[in-house]
Amino acid sequence: MLPPAELDRLRLVLVAARNPLNIGAAARAMSNFGFPRLRVVNPFEAAFREARSAVGASSVLAKAGEFATVAEAVAACTLVVGTTAVRHRQLQHTLRRLEDGARLIRKRLRSGRVALLFGSEKFGLSNEALSHCHWLMRVPTSEENISMNLGQAVAVCLYELIRDAKTPRHPEKADLAAAADVERITGMLLDALHASGFLSRRRVADAEQRIRRLVRRLNLPARDAVIWQGMLRQILWKLRSGEKRPG
Amino acid sequence: MLPPAELDRLRLVLVAARNPLNIGAAARAMSNFGFPRLRVVNPFEAAFREARSAVGASSVLAKAGEFATVAEAVAACTLVVGTTAVRHRQLQHTLRRLEDGARLIRKRLRSGRVALLFGSEKFGLSNEALSHCHWLMRVPTSEENISMNLGQAVAVCLYELIRDAKTPRHPEKADLAAAADVERITGMLLDALHASGFLSRRRVADAEQRIRRLVRRLNLPARDAVIWQGMLRQILWKLRSGEKRPG
Repeated sequence: MLPPAELDRLRLVLVAARNPLNIGAAARAMSNFGFPRLRVVNPFEAAFREARSAVGASSVLAKAGEFATVAEAVAACTLVVGTTAVRHRQLQHTLRRLEDGARLIRKRLRSGRVALLFGSEKFGLSNEALSHCHWLMRVPTSEENISMNLGQAVAVCLYELIRDAKTPRHPEKADLAAAADVERITGMLLDALHASGFLSRRRVADAEQRIRRLVRRLNLPARDAVIWQGMLRQILWKLRSGEKRPG
Repeated sequence: MLPPAELDRLRLVLVAARNPLNIGAAARAMSNFGFPRLRVVNPFEAAFREARSAVGASSVLAKAGEFATVAEAVAACTLVVGTTAVRHRQLQHTLRRLEDGARLIRKRLRSGRVALLFGSEKFGLSNEALSHCHWLMRVPTSEENISMNLGQAVAVCLYELIRDAKTPRHPEKADLAAAADVERITGMLLDALHASGFLSRRRVADAEQRIRRLVRRLNLPARDAVIWQGMLRQILWKLRSGEKRPG
């Protein structure tokens, strides 16, 4: 997550969006990732503020600024970035991968306002809108289907902005059971295999070692050692109580 | 982007999705990022294949597999990952940040099939569905609005999977057992626990799910799946043959 002051410096600008549900979906993604400032330029339907897709994001939608032109919507920003699905056409602009672009945007947000523009579902950003952009950014989609849904594209771009590459990463690793517990479990399993006839029947010479290796290949978590012993103890008790009965 | 063979090994599993438009949106994101294999478990509306939101993704939707249970949908997978918006509740599972989880999934996709589960829009994944998961993954959303739209959550997760495919590639050492084998072993263990009196004695309400999670926490190697089944089958046979004798 970015600091609140930096989240507050981003203006997400939807230019000529056609479907109010997509505006609502964009607002929802903004709310999910903590960005409060939505701006809408020339929406196709004026009644976008009621979009039911803005689950949990009604305040983002209510406070959304509405503008007649891109120029007005981005006026206070020191960096204006456009998004596009296209790879090679707009040679007038530098086209950055999402990750590289997001890094530059984060850097700028530390001190200045940044506008991130998304075009209409059908046509993307017009040449007029593009002309306000310093550079363009593209989500790395597959050649077969490059065009993303507007709400999904917004979600992916904002996720990349808040995805903090600096956070220390040490994936949780479960503590593993101590050797003594693993060995107790091995012993009980061996007893159960003898009592059930599994081992004596097969007469494998190095059976004990094979079973020991088998149990070691499980990554038995420390927290589970007690319950495995309890289960095996009960099974073993039952197997043996059966043995004592006349056949 | 991942190599086609690895994209093909991911099963994106939508469990009890309520809105066909969200299933279509998930298919669209899959198509955008090159993942072909969608699976649907128990959708709320059967007519999801016509969802208009699957722009450019009609083939993903047409080929989607439909299943009655999570167990069947993930049967061939060696890793089953659930997604959740919740931070602290499901203490039974390891909860990983999206980036860390995605790295582990990419690693596994080099040699094995992975299922990525998304729950219903209203309730997320049920405890039964969660009990099939090895661990959970969470998109780092803001405290104020943690719950993402289903289609947007799918887009963000898949983006994270394809985002950085440049990481060094060395396949994992041991192949892990497929979910169908793990589930068979779970079933036999449950039978043995009932036959031995371990379960009926304790009367734990969610015993089956707890045992399922317990078995999932073992990293059962594929090469050992057969022998574990053989051992349990023999123990179970013996436990039951004891039952039949007069007391």
